[in-house]
Amino acid sequence: MKSGAIDFYFDFISPYAYLGSQLVDALGERQGRGVDWRPLLLGISVLRVMELKAIADTPLKGTYSRHDAPRFARYLGLPFKRPHGVLKPLAPMRAFVWLKQNDPAAATLFARTFFRAQWGEGRNLSDPDAVAALAAELGHNAPAVRAAIDDEAVKQRLRTDVDAAIAAGVFGVPTLVVDGELFWGADRLPMVERWLESGGW
Amino acid sequence: MKSGAIDFYFDFISPYAYLGSQLVDALGERQGRGVDWRPLLLGISVLRVMELKAIADTPLKGTYSRHDAPRFARYLGLPFKRPHGVLKPLAPMRAFVWLKQNDPAAATLFARTFFRAQWGEGRNLSDPDAVAALAAELGHNAPAVRAAIDDEAVKQRLRTDVDAAIAAGVFGVPTLVVDGELFWGADRLPMVERWLESGGW
Repeated sequence: MKSGAIDFYFDFISPYAYLGSQLVDALGERQGRGVDWRPLLLGISVLRVMELKAIADTPLKGTYSRHDAPRFARYLGLPFKRPHGVLKPLAPMRAFVWLKQNDPAAATLFARTFFRAQWGEGRNLSDPDAVAALAAELGHNAPAVRAAIDDEAVKQRLRTDVDAAIAAGVFGVPTLVVDGELFWGADRLPMVERWLESGGW
Repeated sequence: MKSGAIDFYFDFISPYAYLGSQLVDALGERQGRGVDWRPLLLGISVLRVMELKAIADTPLKGTYSRHDAPRFARYLGLPFKRPHGVLKPLAPMRAFVWLKQNDPAAATLFARTFFRAQWGEGRNLSDPDAVAALAAELGHNAPAVRAAIDDEAVKQRLRTDVDAAIAAGVFGVPTLVVDGELFWGADRLPMVERWLESGGW
């Protein structure tokens, strides 16, 4: 490993974070960097700070992103299927935070798998029981995951993490931070890779 | 030339439109397509439709873009110097519209040159007299340009063009439209080029 890890900020609600999630670990591997997956809560925290509404609720931009995200997935060779219904990222984000406390690699695998199930296969896994079931498919203890989702300490940990992300200037997903440089957007991964290859500019 | 032109939507107020403006004609040339430069008015029209504030006035995102735009310029090998003071794009946008009526290629050259002067050299050319002077450097008649900026028919033509852009779903700059497909963002030019090379996906 070269110096620091790549910080990868994500929120399960975002199809663009999904696209980044399927690519970032391979990018880190190619560049000899670890990847530190970090939670953000776009709708619940960041957009309030920015006084913005969600992309999906923004005229013109919402229409664009519904067409662009699957087109971008095809460009990258990734499966894409929009899940039905409202997505509520709190339960899986809490499960991620809880898993990460003991085993960051397992948390990363959970998050990458969750993204793929939700945005690649179109499964709406917002329900806490569905989150626990997915974790169980990866070998985790379903009742423990289910309990963690309602655990006050886990909730607080997620809030603390999100506050720290905002304090670091992160406002969208995916955001990658390398050596103190923020790059926002799934379309910026090639630029991040160039940054790592070249040492920056 | 293959089938249709690439529509390139711009607003002089945007540093990202500047980046696109310095690259799009070469992209069109490589792909055997003309480029049809089309005006947008972000602050005056589009953000009202979207009920958004300007990026520069958005917490977190404004800070990011002030760092990211010059970093992106360095990545592309383009000069970047942020002009002082408030930028008012109406006068140069009207000059563009007026030039385009008689000579689209001259209008494109004016716009590309204006972008370079404003964002590459840091000259604030918001004043109508400064716009006319820049046009004169390109061989245009300064008093005629100056008069066009205050011409009611030119103002109306710009409004009509911007309304048409919004009706076509355009909401940001730069936006490129190829064969009915919208691509928003200077970071999407490689994707547009792949689209043109491959015939789409």
